[in-house]
Amino acid sequence: MTTRIVELRRGILKKNDELAAALRQRFATAGVLVLNLVSSPGTGKTALLELTLRQLRARGAHAAALVGDLETDNDARRLAASGAPVLQINTHGICHLDAEMVTKHIEGWQAVALAELEFLFIENVGNLVCPSSYDLGERIRVVLLSVTEGEDKPLKYPGLFNSADAAVITKTDLAVPCGFDRDLALRNINEIRPGIRIFETSAKTGAGMEAWLAYLTEQARPS
Amino acid sequence: MTTRIVELRRGILKKNDELAAALRQRFATAGVLVLNLVSSPGTGKTALLELTLRQLRARGAHAAALVGDLETDNDARRLAASGAPVLQINTHGICHLDAEMVTKHIEGWQAVALAELEFLFIENVGNLVCPSSYDLGERIRVVLLSVTEGEDKPLKYPGLFNSADAAVITKTDLAVPCGFDRDLALRNINEIRPGIRIFETSAKTGAGMEAWLAYLTEQARPS
Repeated sequence: MTTRIVELRRGILKKNDELAAALRQRFATAGVLVLNLVSSPGTGKTALLELTLRQLRARGAHAAALVGDLETDNDARRLAASGAPVLQINTHGICHLDAEMVTKHIEGWQAVALAELEFLFIENVGNLVCPSSYDLGERIRVVLLSVTEGEDKPLKYPGLFNSADAAVITKTDLAVPCGFDRDLALRNINEIRPGIRIFETSAKTGAGMEAWLAYLTEQARPS
Repeated sequence: MTTRIVELRRGILKKNDELAAALRQRFATAGVLVLNLVSSPGTGKTALLELTLRQLRARGAHAAALVGDLETDNDARRLAASGAPVLQINTHGICHLDAEMVTKHIEGWQAVALAELEFLFIENVGNLVCPSSYDLGERIRVVLLSVTEGEDKPLKYPGLFNSADAAVITKTDLAVPCGFDRDLALRNINEIRPGIRIFETSAKTGAGMEAWLAYLTEQARPS
């Protein structure tokens, strides 16, 4: 039984990798920077993304978002208030997005021509485990960790932190009431993924947004 | 491909259900109340459990804990400080506990004789999606939701909330700085699981522990 499961899982991941490679090529040709945002439920992916979309648009940048959730389109409605094109992907019980879902939704998305975008954000299902195995063709994988979750999360969920290109510590306005140990958190992130770019933001106060937006703008520039 | 996956998944869940039924029978014979604690990473399962173990032991009750994590035995070490027997299950990448892991660890657990226990807490891997399908033979499934995560989580992760017997809202000491809307959270939990028992606790201040312990004691009593 175990052997069959492992083989099937390998087959699924291989198929996903092929679709993701095709997506990555397509995104590169269109000149759009694609980011895959991953975290626990409730870390604040949507709040960070809402503010990011607003501030990018205020600077004249073209940005859009694909939002994954098991059920509801609450997040898509929140994000659409920013004025950016937003499309919801409901996975109906599946614990992660995969490259096939992204491909299908991008192809059916009337409101968006990839070539006109500079940024496409993909907000994954809230889950610190399963999304780590599924490449979505993104150029940058961002893991988010809120100050309310505890500094030990990188050590306990190493797979995801190890696969990320950037980390964002969110809800920094709550650091004091939570007794957040910043040095320990930074040390733990660096232990799992040495040298990773780390940002510290509060979507409530706007703290840290300048550095985060500067990074996005720098990454979007054609190299 | 999809059909094969669905069949294999059904096979895995069927095998899990059979093992879970055997565990449930074994727990009932031993007269131990078994609870399965599920939540996002960072909701505070370990903090609630640490205080619960301490307070149960202070009342002379016999309690033990099995703790699931992808990696590290940090949680087991934290919980062992309560003086209760604690065993770590490392899943090495698997996103949930299953009945086979529980069976194996209970059988190898020299320190614990089930018949001498009144309570056995199983702390699941931090994940609001995948553990919902895996019965561990528990009598009570407890879903935890912290005030920092947002009131919409029951609507976005209905599978788990719908399979729970009790819900605990944690970190209530942070409700004010988080702007937590208690009425909305209670309404959302009740929308997914009408009539579910709901507790509101803070492991930091001890608020709400009396009601939670009274519930545990009442449930442990032979009916």
